[in-house]
Amino acid sequence: MAEAVRHDKTARQLRLLSDALDSGRLGPVRRLVNTLSPAEIGNLLESLPPGKRTVVWGLVDAEDDGEVLVHVGDDVREGLLAEMDPDEIIAAVEDLDIDDLADLVEDLPDTVIDEVLKSMDRENRERLEQVLSYPEDTAGRLMNPDVVTVRTDTTIDVVLRYLRLRGELPEHTDHLYVVSRRHQYLGRIALAALLTHEPGTPINKLIDDEQPAIDVEESANQVARKFSDHDWLSAPVVDDNNILLGRITIDDVVDIIRSEAEHQALSAAGLDEDEDLFSPVWRAMRRRLIWLSINLGTAFLAASVVGEFADTIDKLVALAVLMPIVAGMGGNAGTQVLALMVRGLALGQVGAANVRTLLWKESRVALLNGLVLGTLLGLIVLLWFHSVGLSIVIATALTANLLFAAVAGVLVPVTIKRFGYDPALASGIFLTTVTDVMGFFTFLGLATIILLR
Amino acid sequence: MAEAVRHDKTARQLRLLSDALDSGRLGPVRRLVNTLSPAEIGNLLESLPPGKRTVVWGLVDAEDDGEVLVHVGDDVREGLLAEMDPDEIIAAVEDLDIDDLADLVEDLPDTVIDEVLKSMDRENRERLEQVLSYPEDTAGRLMNPDVVTVRTDTTIDVVLRYLRLRGELPEHTDHLYVVSRRHQYLGRIALAALLTHEPGTPINKLIDDEQPAIDVEESANQVARKFSDHDWLSAPVVDDNNILLGRITIDDVVDIIRSEAEHQALSAAGLDEDEDLFSPVWRAMRRRLIWLSINLGTAFLAASVVGEFADTIDKLVALAVLMPIVAGMGGNAGTQVLALMVRGLALGQVGAANVRTLLWKESRVALLNGLVLGTLLGLIVLLWFHSVGLSIVIATALTANLLFAAVAGVLVPVTIKRFGYDPALASGIFLTTVTDVMGFFTFLGLATIILLR
Repeated sequence: MAEAVRHDKTARQLRLLSDALDSGRLGPVRRLVNTLSPAEIGNLLESLPPGKRTVVWGLVDAEDDGEVLVHVGDDVREGLLAEMDPDEIIAAVEDLDIDDLADLVEDLPDTVIDEVLKSMDRENRERLEQVLSYPEDTAGRLMNPDVVTVRTDTTIDVVLRYLRLRGELPEHTDHLYVVSRRHQYLGRIALAALLTHEPGTPINKLIDDEQPAIDVEESANQVARKFSDHDWLSAPVVDDNNILLGRITIDDVVDIIRSEAEHQALSAAGLDEDEDLFSPVWRAMRRRLIWLSINLGTAFLAASVVGEFADTIDKLVALAVLMPIVAGMGGNAGTQVLALMVRGLALGQVGAANVRTLLWKESRVALLNGLVLGTLLGLIVLLWFHSVGLSIVIATALTANLLFAAVAGVLVPVTIKRFGYDPALASGIFLTTVTDVMGFFTFLGLATIILLR
Repeated sequence: MAEAVRHDKTARQLRLLSDALDSGRLGPVRRLVNTLSPAEIGNLLESLPPGKRTVVWGLVDAEDDGEVLVHVGDDVREGLLAEMDPDEIIAAVEDLDIDDLADLVEDLPDTVIDEVLKSMDRENRERLEQVLSYPEDTAGRLMNPDVVTVRTDTTIDVVLRYLRLRGELPEHTDHLYVVSRRHQYLGRIALAALLTHEPGTPINKLIDDEQPAIDVEESANQVARKFSDHDWLSAPVVDDNNILLGRITIDDVVDIIRSEAEHQALSAAGLDEDEDLFSPVWRAMRRRLIWLSINLGTAFLAASVVGEFADTIDKLVALAVLMPIVAGMGGNAGTQVLALMVRGLALGQVGAANVRTLLWKESRVALLNGLVLGTLLGLIVLLWFHSVGLSIVIATALTANLLFAAVAGVLVPVTIKRFGYDPALASGIFLTTVTDVMGFFTFLGLATIILLR
């Protein structure tokens, strides 16, 4: 195994760490862990089973605790918090940025939240309360209210003096925001512009008012889309009255994109992106059981179709041997269409305007694949069972099922989205139900009509 | 349909545009298209069937052509380039940033490449050649060689005068890089630091040498991982001798993360992330055929197992009715394990150190799910077929197949990765082959032993 992961830093560290943990040498573990960034420590903790995870968590520098908590999934976070006493939690979180703190706060015990709020100064407390007043997964929750603002009626010189007096800027500041007396957003000034223009230049000559501000109620996904469509590094957030509330920086957007991608990949298997690799067996089982029970229901639906043709199978057992091929191939072909459609829907590339065109294209692809694969399958079946009739039946059934698969692959995700659900989550089940039911029905039905008369 | 996509800006635009195109009113289309950013135009073009795509492409402002080409997938790009004559292509690409041009250049006709190179000044041509000398998907290809450097032996004052003289900074510059006389990378200075310190401050007091430089040969995925692990907005790129070659900015990293996610989602269905939603039917068919042919092969493997038990099925046709349930449920359960493992492998969280622990956890989850679902399935089968023996056989076979699924779900992706292949691509096929073959074998085998003696 070691060779495979040789180039993979995290996996290598994991191995070193695991060996050190097994041998009980905690000194090297502590040194190793604390050379990592909080995100890397989070990643490492997620890769450890609960027992080792607790040991390593105890070795992380206290000053990194808060940032590490921000960087792990909900399930793992819950476990880590359970290992800390209230004082440790308060110490860990009180220095976090407002947006990170807002992200964590709902997972904290109530008594700890009260303590944290008490330990904050009034300005920060109010900022936190404001951020928390917006629903999860909106711009309001992502924003950091800590922004540097300037007025229009001044010059670079004055701004530079103000900045030198102020000292440090908030992390990842690339623009100052220009606001009116009523704190309405007017535009932004790049730090680069302040550096490349003469000190006497009036500020209003440098204002860039091209980039629209983000509405505080926009969804996190929309925000992510805008950032990547426009190559933004940061963007101001305003309310309905154009009052500047904060700013969103691209590092948070990267986290959204990553978790959106994980969500798509895992929800296709009925899992949550916060699922812990080492979640307790009982919890993992309960969660998966729901999904598998739904699948059991659809499997019975398919089985009942086969049941209707029990007499036919009884007379020709070869049908039982071959029927999984027709159903399975439909499922595979449909999954290909589905993958393209789910991406298209996520990117907003698929809508009422082009569904019909897609249906037409995918039907033709299915028909052509049906002709090629049907012929191939028919020939193999002819060689295997020496029955021209059976060979024709299976070739026809396969082609038909590929067509059903194409139609379902296009329409199922579009319909699920139309009803306001996530196509990545539920499409697969519906699709394979269609391809199983129609695969069995077409194959066994055709066989009954053609072979058993 | 319209209601479902109401909140989806791209889909709404698509609809408006499609209506306008259908009615032949090109004026509104042109106006609509040219309010969009190049990335949005690219997205829009990808959502149009070839005919409309060509019309809209002709309406895009010439000055946006180059950026739009950068933002579309390879397949679509090829089609768009085919619509342009050499002069248009040269005009479109000659103002692109070096990293974007490097991304495009291999898709251009050779004669055009020569012309583009001729139209560039010597410095830019050398930079382009340097970037192109690194393999695709490495830091060298992602970097932009256009960086602002300063020396250590100077003060803020001097740097500010230099910057004012220089004028504009390259896009997304957030740091200046400090280099030695031999152009070795020494550290970086935040623009914010230049603004918040007194003019007389010596530069070497502001140098941040904490962030390690990226090696020019690092893979794009490693670069993306580092950016998101450390919340970087930009990073310097150096060669083996620590000579500064360029810088990578996070907007390019966002593109990598997005295409990595698309790759994972589509490759699970045997598709390429550059697949065009409206690729020509012949091309789409040929690509999918390969994948479906492999699936046909594995389906025959499963069918041949069923074939071995033809006599058993002949005696008890209920087995044919129920066998897809056992195989299918194994596939579904295995897919859940697989989804977790593929993510874990991508994040470097799964390696030799914890495979055994994962195997143990997943086996227990499978056993528990097997007990619950097996009992449920057994009861339904008892009610349906009134056979205690059949009920016990299917409950046992399901539990066994869930166990096989768990083991395959853990080991298949790990093994595929060990052999240097992408687990996202091939794992699904191997997994369902295992669950089909073992599902049929266990169920029909147990039935033969227990029910037909």
